[in-house]
Amino acid sequence: MTQRLAAWTQHTQRSALQDMLEITSGPEYISFGLGLPNAACFPTEQLALSANEVLLRQSNPLQYAPSFEPLKRQIQELMSRRGVTCSTSQIFLTAGAQQGIQLLARLLLDPGGTVMTEEVTYTGFLQILEPFQPRILTVPTDPVTGIDVDRLETILQKEERPACLYVIPSGHNPLGYTLSREKRQRLARLAAEYEVPLIEDDPYGFLAYDDLELPAVKSFQSDGVYYVGSFSKILAPGLRLGWIVADEAIIEKLSIVKEAADINTATLTQRIAADFLAKDAFELHLRHLLLEYKSRRDCMLEHLSAQLDGIGAWTTPSNGMFIWVRLPAHLDAMTLFQESIATEKVTFFPGNVFAAGQNGNASSSFRLNFSFNDPGKIEEGVARLSRLVKRHL
Amino acid sequence: MTQRLAAWTQHTQRSALQDMLEITSGPEYISFGLGLPNAACFPTEQLALSANEVLLRQSNPLQYAPSFEPLKRQIQELMSRRGVTCSTSQIFLTAGAQQGIQLLARLLLDPGGTVMTEEVTYTGFLQILEPFQPRILTVPTDPVTGIDVDRLETILQKEERPACLYVIPSGHNPLGYTLSREKRQRLARLAAEYEVPLIEDDPYGFLAYDDLELPAVKSFQSDGVYYVGSFSKILAPGLRLGWIVADEAIIEKLSIVKEAADINTATLTQRIAADFLAKDAFELHLRHLLLEYKSRRDCMLEHLSAQLDGIGAWTTPSNGMFIWVRLPAHLDAMTLFQESIATEKVTFFPGNVFAAGQNGNASSSFRLNFSFNDPGKIEEGVARLSRLVKRHL
Repeated sequence: MTQRLAAWTQHTQRSALQDMLEITSGPEYISFGLGLPNAACFPTEQLALSANEVLLRQSNPLQYAPSFEPLKRQIQELMSRRGVTCSTSQIFLTAGAQQGIQLLARLLLDPGGTVMTEEVTYTGFLQILEPFQPRILTVPTDPVTGIDVDRLETILQKEERPACLYVIPSGHNPLGYTLSREKRQRLARLAAEYEVPLIEDDPYGFLAYDDLELPAVKSFQSDGVYYVGSFSKILAPGLRLGWIVADEAIIEKLSIVKEAADINTATLTQRIAADFLAKDAFELHLRHLLLEYKSRRDCMLEHLSAQLDGIGAWTTPSNGMFIWVRLPAHLDAMTLFQESIATEKVTFFPGNVFAAGQNGNASSSFRLNFSFNDPGKIEEGVARLSRLVKRHL
Repeated sequence: MTQRLAAWTQHTQRSALQDMLEITSGPEYISFGLGLPNAACFPTEQLALSANEVLLRQSNPLQYAPSFEPLKRQIQELMSRRGVTCSTSQIFLTAGAQQGIQLLARLLLDPGGTVMTEEVTYTGFLQILEPFQPRILTVPTDPVTGIDVDRLETILQKEERPACLYVIPSGHNPLGYTLSREKRQRLARLAAEYEVPLIEDDPYGFLAYDDLELPAVKSFQSDGVYYVGSFSKILAPGLRLGWIVADEAIIEKLSIVKEAADINTATLTQRIAADFLAKDAFELHLRHLLLEYKSRRDCMLEHLSAQLDGIGAWTTPSNGMFIWVRLPAHLDAMTLFQESIATEKVTFFPGNVFAAGQNGNASSSFRLNFSFNDPGKIEEGVARLSRLVKRHL
């Protein structure tokens, strides 16, 4: 039988992310590619205790169920650390942040509609857009200072109002920047003034390494800002838990879209997370996680400096999991990547993977993840990578 | 700020299902409404053992991960019971069957495209269709004999080729019928002949109470038939686990749609289910489940006969969780439902909730779930319901 599929699927392909996941699974590779947390940092034994508690002591941990109120209250408390005051009825649980963004896109965007994002942005957002075949308005961005809010305003003045603006203000993926307080305030004001729904993707907001936890954009402007949070980076991705903070009217619409998507978020993992978060263990876990990731970040920066000083450029990310490395313009990161797979066996994401629309600047840059590997592997991986880069100078 | 949402959301509302979930949560209600499994039948203690095993003994149970191969092999074995021979590379894991159907719809259907389903069908499928605003071709169906395959063929001859045909051949929700072997073969042939992708939703295929487990439609025609399975009804819905069996080319496309939807199915619950399924305990569990549900079904049938014989009509469902009750045509099930909420406090789903397109016949019918309640509650609930019906004769 001829396979007849929806029109948008004709031009779609497996993402580099998926291919990478398979390619780099062998032990001979050092992976700086995927945005994976460090598995040794998961509070596995404590989650085992919570699983026991939930399954043997709580009633109905395995049934279909509406969102678990105690977990929503824990999230409410987490949000106050991000400067956001909200009620539990403004919190909506999702199967990870990716689902949160996807449900919001379904709610905000018409097929063929217009969306706005940075020239270099999270690939998962671009994948979400594909079935909508939208017009994408791209805003210039910078690895150090982040989204260009002046240009953003110019575009908003000139163009039709987009269905949404997507941003990652803290520990940007892939650029690593964390937006200043002033730019956050400006973003919040522009979203309100031009009535553009703003999706604030904040998986790395809690991963702040330098005592500089800037408040969420949503803290400056609640109305029309859709905050998306995740337990994948601060607890464990294998639970598939995230959340959205939005107006109650939107929550009601979201519940319709969510029910059509997968009925409800897994009752069991909701309960396990809630049990763990209710204990003091979470504070200790988060403090430990920050120390571990900070030392990995510093280790990668140290070895990059030792090996590529004067050749490449990068910044110290205050949040998240990524360092964005810019090389001289004549180097092509995709070529380096292909050679690396074959020879040095270190993986990373070439910059163009993250390009929304046309942006030549990303082709000589690449993204390195520093959370996944131990310092020893980081040192070895940076050495291999530097050897590769130097061969191409 | 004015909320500007996608056009399709303007006419969408919370489903009766969601409202029901809230209304009937009080202990004064007897719920025959939702399609809930019986929580006492979940193998909770054994799943707690599996959770312990997985979290304390297995490597990486909490990381992002591709689908867990041992679980796919378990599913491969389950599929052989449904008459389907497949490789593990044809099996795709999902967060429950609902997600399976939704991912398939995304892959097969263009906005404004055409789909085909029975006049009375699963509401969750209708919810999935909403954002696509499709043209829905409805096929007549019957609570006893199921989808009218002659009329199906007539429609296929006359109309443009639909993007897909959606069916629930075993323990149909809401009608309760299980399609005969002959009709299954005919459906398979029609799908192939007219090149219409067929979505076979089979959450109740394993819940066969009368030693009459008919093979899946996919067993008669593999090419172009998309089988959707679920652990929600045979294990526990709180794990959110289901699967699709399809051609490898489709699996690759599905992995793209799935990654955009929620990255991957929860590693933890995949591992827990795989550990449990690998033990002999699953066979015992399933046998126990079938006995329990069969006795609940028989209890409901017995009390319906005692109370409503000669007033309503129903059949003995060989599979699933539902009995479809037809009342005299002048009775309106929605009116009965509203009165029931206020007076008798027994809940059920009025037939029109399941109507795709225009279908007058469903308004005097309703769906009863027999899996959720214990026999005592079933007796009491049927008594209340019958009192209500008799007041309206």
